[in-house]
Amino acid sequence: MKTSLLALSLSALVATAAMPALAQSDTIETERHDVQLHTITDGLENPWGMTFISNTEVLVTERPGHLRRVSLDGTVSEPLSGVPAVDARNQGGLLDVAVDPDFANNSYIYISYAEPNPDNDKENSTAVARAKLDGNALTDVEVIFQQYPKYESTGHFGSRLVFSPEGHLYITLGDRQTRKDASQELDTHIGKTVRIWPDGSVPEDNPFVNKDGALPEIWSYGNRNVQGAALHPETKELWASEHGPRGGDEINIIRAGNNYGWPDASYGINYDGSILTEHTHLEGAEQPHYYWVPSIATAGIMFYTGDKFPEWQGDLFVGALRDRHVARLDLEGERVMHEETLLKGDIEQRVRAITQGPDGYIYLLTDDPDGRLVQVKPAND
Amino acid sequence: MKTSLLALSLSALVATAAMPALAQSDTIETERHDVQLHTITDGLENPWGMTFISNTEVLVTERPGHLRRVSLDGTVSEPLSGVPAVDARNQGGLLDVAVDPDFANNSYIYISYAEPNPDNDKENSTAVARAKLDGNALTDVEVIFQQYPKYESTGHFGSRLVFSPEGHLYITLGDRQTRKDASQELDTHIGKTVRIWPDGSVPEDNPFVNKDGALPEIWSYGNRNVQGAALHPETKELWASEHGPRGGDEINIIRAGNNYGWPDASYGINYDGSILTEHTHLEGAEQPHYYWVPSIATAGIMFYTGDKFPEWQGDLFVGALRDRHVARLDLEGERVMHEETLLKGDIEQRVRAITQGPDGYIYLLTDDPDGRLVQVKPAND
Ligand SMILES: [Ca+2]
Ligand SMILES: [Ca+2]
Ligand SMILES: [Ca+2]
Ligand SMILES: [Ca+2]
Repeated sequence: MKTSLLALSLSALVATAAMPALAQSDTIETERHDVQLHTITDGLENPWGMTFISNTEVLVTERPGHLRRVSLDGTVSEPLSGVPAVDARNQGGLLDVAVDPDFANNSYIYISYAEPNPDNDKENSTAVARAKLDGNALTDVEVIFQQYPKYESTGHFGSRLVFSPEGHLYITLGDRQTRKDASQELDTHIGKTVRIWPDGSVPEDNPFVNKDGALPEIWSYGNRNVQGAALHPETKELWASEHGPRGGDEINIIRAGNNYGWPDASYGINYDGSILTEHTHLEGAEQPHYYWVPSIATAGIMFYTGDKFPEWQGDLFVGALRDRHVARLDLEGERVMHEETLLKGDIEQRVRAITQGPDGYIYLLTDDPDGRLVQVKPAND
Repeated sequence: MKTSLLALSLSALVATAAMPALAQSDTIETERHDVQLHTITDGLENPWGMTFISNTEVLVTERPGHLRRVSLDGTVSEPLSGVPAVDARNQGGLLDVAVDPDFANNSYIYISYAEPNPDNDKENSTAVARAKLDGNALTDVEVIFQQYPKYESTGHFGSRLVFSPEGHLYITLGDRQTRKDASQELDTHIGKTVRIWPDGSVPEDNPFVNKDGALPEIWSYGNRNVQGAALHPETKELWASEHGPRGGDEINIIRAGNNYGWPDASYGINYDGSILTEHTHLEGAEQPHYYWVPSIATAGIMFYTGDKFPEWQGDLFVGALRDRHVARLDLEGERVMHEETLLKGDIEQRVRAITQGPDGYIYLLTDDPDGRLVQVKPAND
């Protein structure tokens, strides 16, 4: 009897020790809500993507190639087994993660990553795998998409995964940094967004399925490096953030068959300060819905629809790498009425991903060797 | 012979002395154009409104009550005679000026001003007079509009004058600072924009002509203090800038019969920092097209349509009092894609008015006891 009580106490003690106390910020004032930041964990290595798999647990990717389960109490699992090999040089590695719309029944998750070329270790491209999540293991791993062609570059992988209401999977891609002209050519997946079914098959109504020489997965083209994507809560259209060159970060509404202009039209300039293109407009191409000069280095995006921050409902939140903040675009329908710079100086790490939890709080991933999962709550909640 | 040559030389000398050399700024880089500022004159006392009357001459109001002709060579006339008495306390005085669409034939100009109540020298309201411009005199002066009622206040006069393509005159008004609730009531001109014919008569199709108890001049209501207005070059609709309280400066597209929400809905807060209203939305009222928090103190606005700054065509320029700059809203149709802060630190005086000259250059008035008319040109033009 005494022994088992002691054992119980010890095990409670151990459990407590495994859950670090959540660091909590002072109250931060914003235009419409006072908030506090709660650091769920700061033990993540360059986390890049996340998705909730229950009310209290998040799957998180780490760019070097690990996938972990993170509980909101701060517990971080060992790396899950079964993750494919990734090319983790520079911007490459394990990138986004999403759950199947029917995850509760089929246990499918999807991961995007820089997939090495087995025949040439300098080459890679963005790929997407589907797998079943079984405890701390991925099983039945199946590659459902490979960006064509593989290419010698360690930059501009794009890589957000978003499901449409009909169950299509959107995959955002990049121009591989030194292949920008291919963004205007329909015979590659470079500088594109694509739309597939979750088994890798091509929807019959994709915009270029009947076009000779065009890859049928293509949904849009002329995209430079799309590292944020989300469905608009009302229109259900795909919105995306796109890294510009120095200046010219964009928000676009990504519609079937559209050309978003890169590299022939841009509001950006080259990193050396020279004019990239004199053209901000290109005949037949879409203007950005909204853009930044200078760049904020746009990453993950999220529409807020919860009840914890009523004044933020319907607004678009954009993670920013450069100034380590979150931009709030106050939307009236699709119209940007105002931009607020949130949390600048409060996060101190690059904001790579942002999502709304089942609890209505907002969650951020910071891309850092000591990267964090941060919960944004109303002050004194 | 010698005498007359001397006389000629002397008169040339005098003419030169009367034209101060134009002060020219260094080249100023902006996102799309390098510009230079040329100070036409710095000899204006709190100028407020301007309108070109020829390719080389501008009519300029000075708030203390003077109207002057200013040539682009820097010559400033004596005050014109015939200007009505104005109540020049605080924000009041002689405010905007506009020319008739048929000015070349009828010589009509229009001025807005704080008109004293002859029976109570503490009271005033915004009035508009029409007159013929005859050299340095106004003749046939006729008051065509008086904001009802006169009120004891020296603030929030609104006062921009804009003609519609059909020849209506829009007059923007203010809430008189301490009468904000009247902005929602249709039996006063407080917190409204109005639309009249240039002779003061009421257009039959004004939105409230058949509404009992409503003043028939009213075009829109719920407007706090509209100190900037211009017609969109494509849609020909009236766009207006509106001073918010601390935060909540707005751009609105002013359409017939619309309610713009003031004071029941606002993105601003009171000057003491307290919340003004919890409501950013009001049932039946329009959201702003665009807004600023914190306020930039919006003044005159202009759409650019000239050929001197091709990359700025179609964009909306907003004079700002607080930070002494000009905001450029990069428009794609009506959509704001981006805001650029122009000339901050370069002007050093509050930008009260902005207009495009017949020459395609941009002209600014700075509201200062040593106020300037400034010409914005491409660098090295
Ligand atoms: Ca683009
Ligand atoms: Ca909103
Ligand atoms: Ca309003
Ligand atoms: Ca433009």
